[in-house]
Amino acid sequence: MKITSVKITPVAVPDVPLLNTKGVHGRVFLRAVIEVETDTGLVGLGEAYGAKRTLAGLQATAPTLTGLDPYNLRDLRARVEAALPNGGGVNAPTALADHQVIDVVYSAFEIACLDLRGKEVGRPLHDLLGGAVRREIPFGGYLFFKYATLPDAIGPDIFGEVITPDAMVEQARALIDEYGFKSLKLKGGVLEPDLEIETMLKLREAFPDHGLRIDPMGAWTVPTAKRVADALDGVLEYLEDPVRGMDAMAELSAQIDMPLATNLVVVEFEQVIEAVKKDAVQIVLSDHHYWRGATGAIHLGEMCRAAGLGVSQHSNSHLGISLAAMCHVAAATPNLTYDSDTHYPWYAHEIVKGGRPNFVDGKLPVPEGPGLGVELDHDAVAKLHQIYLDQQVIDRDDTDEMLKHVPDYVRKVPRW
Amino acid sequence: MKITSVKITPVAVPDVPLLNTKGVHGRVFLRAVIEVETDTGLVGLGEAYGAKRTLAGLQATAPTLTGLDPYNLRDLRARVEAALPNGGGVNAPTALADHQVIDVVYSAFEIACLDLRGKEVGRPLHDLLGGAVRREIPFGGYLFFKYATLPDAIGPDIFGEVITPDAMVEQARALIDEYGFKSLKLKGGVLEPDLEIETMLKLREAFPDHGLRIDPMGAWTVPTAKRVADALDGVLEYLEDPVRGMDAMAELSAQIDMPLATNLVVVEFEQVIEAVKKDAVQIVLSDHHYWRGATGAIHLGEMCRAAGLGVSQHSNSHLGISLAAMCHVAAATPNLTYDSDTHYPWYAHEIVKGGRPNFVDGKLPVPEGPGLGVELDHDAVAKLHQIYLDQQVIDRDDTDEMLKHVPDYVRKVPRW
Repeated sequence: MKITSVKITPVAVPDVPLLNTKGVHGRVFLRAVIEVETDTGLVGLGEAYGAKRTLAGLQATAPTLTGLDPYNLRDLRARVEAALPNGGGVNAPTALADHQVIDVVYSAFEIACLDLRGKEVGRPLHDLLGGAVRREIPFGGYLFFKYATLPDAIGPDIFGEVITPDAMVEQARALIDEYGFKSLKLKGGVLEPDLEIETMLKLREAFPDHGLRIDPMGAWTVPTAKRVADALDGVLEYLEDPVRGMDAMAELSAQIDMPLATNLVVVEFEQVIEAVKKDAVQIVLSDHHYWRGATGAIHLGEMCRAAGLGVSQHSNSHLGISLAAMCHVAAATPNLTYDSDTHYPWYAHEIVKGGRPNFVDGKLPVPEGPGLGVELDHDAVAKLHQIYLDQQVIDRDDTDEMLKHVPDYVRKVPRW
Repeated sequence: MKITSVKITPVAVPDVPLLNTKGVHGRVFLRAVIEVETDTGLVGLGEAYGAKRTLAGLQATAPTLTGLDPYNLRDLRARVEAALPNGGGVNAPTALADHQVIDVVYSAFEIACLDLRGKEVGRPLHDLLGGAVRREIPFGGYLFFKYATLPDAIGPDIFGEVITPDAMVEQARALIDEYGFKSLKLKGGVLEPDLEIETMLKLREAFPDHGLRIDPMGAWTVPTAKRVADALDGVLEYLEDPVRGMDAMAELSAQIDMPLATNLVVVEFEQVIEAVKKDAVQIVLSDHHYWRGATGAIHLGEMCRAAGLGVSQHSNSHLGISLAAMCHVAAATPNLTYDSDTHYPWYAHEIVKGGRPNFVDGKLPVPEGPGLGVELDHDAVAKLHQIYLDQQVIDRDDTDEMLKHVPDYVRKVPRW
């Protein structure tokens, strides 16, 4: 089996004004849909970020994959490295982390290669990752402070404006009612820390049995984070990226008992080692989009087991190909110790046949068809590609977007 | 594909009196040949230690594998753990390391499962490990001080007695002439340290371009090891397990620049983390027989890359199934930074069809047939199984064996 051609289709998906410490989501989010064709007639699917640097990396690499054997991931890596000789620069799709474009591009094609292998042998992807330890994947409800949509919105709003603790409790209730989530994570770093503490305490009161987390994306100083941790002691499962940088995380970690999670300071395997040496984090958020694909994410899980670290899954705004890949990785990661994140409830669109899957009790069944177990709905892709062409949004800048809502907004990390 | 039955055949292979710090090899070494049958008619092969604790572990586990899907390595692990509820105790086939029987048994069946998967899909095993980065695997010449065979020997002697530095140079020359090895490793801890220093210096003089190593299996104290390291500064590629225990390795490592390698203090993934924290070793010797099979060995390689550690491959006395598995692991380990060890030249027998492969310039080609790429020679297995029955050797005890040569021998670690 050899790759004969690769098709990259950028799509834009109507988004809502979700807030984070960098700013706010714009009217669309961008993804790249990947179709890898082979001489056997099989087509492998992948999904990556669609902002300009990733898209350019995918497009530069795509033609160099002709002739690649999808089994040879080391050849894939070599081709990606050759196609992006400067490492692809850095790319921070939503976060403060500087993920190398090279890892993001490799990861996207790795998933497509595994999809091909699974399809060839008639096996679900999790079988290629060592086998499933669970068939239903628990996700958490991802809570966002948000504005109401602007006049240039191209999709419906969801929940309207949410910028108070009480409104957040109602958002959580609506998400739980619809999806059955058993845990909740708040994207923090948006309101004053005292208001976010109040929010978490009100969530605890309203949902006494739900796991709770908050992720301010490095918005706090160490003393502020210490104060939040003390106020929420016994309330949170973990505190995610409360402060910015490995050393600040280590400094905070030494002062508190609450576990620290990250998807910002540990984004490469070398940083797992550094984090262990510095005792900077206790939980790593895995993500097949930059942890060298699904096999890399499994490797990360094993490494975390050896290092005594917990594992969960990070999420960006995504569609159904990524959702399927997350389910396979989660199925094959024995020590996935926390519910996975997902932005999925915030969007109404889908690009895989059969449409949006139903969450039951916050869980999704792992697809059991060959490979990823999903097929592309080409009409849906065409529609979202047309939105991409029409909207002329080719990059993501949450801070720039924020100025439309708050003209004097200044991005600042840490803010408090 | 489901497993329908598992056959374990213990074999005994004529051995020669190779010396190490624990004692000396007996007249045979023991291996277990594993045949895993499936409902598709495919048979997967494996090879493990054959001494009594491993054999008992394999035999206790074998019947519980009926119905196992060879893709589901996590189910395999669960079944092995269930079959060996006390962890299988510990098993030290040749070394001071306490490898859990449970890891050894899992590893043996893991290889057989991968062999089945490769056969099913018509792919060499290295393709299931992420793809080959090399097609020829370099091995080093493994030098042993040795006695001449005892009267109860059942095979021919090789090189006769070798217990002086000058005789060792001749042994090395013979091995290089026959196999073309480009590096040499001496099993040390046998003669006085000064004589072993002299041996390495004479090897350096005789073979100025060969990589040289010595492995005294923890026979030295830290001061002795420091003295040896100073005397051989610039002569060795690395010093392997000069002292016993993680903390002693760390203490020595802090005093010398020469890299330290190990197959004794780092035998589990958790110990990679410990070794990094303590800066105790710089090179880990991988071995699919106890590092959770071939996928585990690949995982180890990735972990070592992240931790900045070098990787080589450890060897026990083995036959062609293990040799093939070593070649596949080596092919798919990008950062295999040193020639692999092998005891293979010390034995004349083989159990795979086509007989013994030819080393050219110290290298073997990676088998390119499906799975391991080797087939069992059932006549050869039957012959070695008959030796196993005739000889009534069911365990390995190098110290006990030593008493036949040196009646007042006392095992002592460290010795110097």
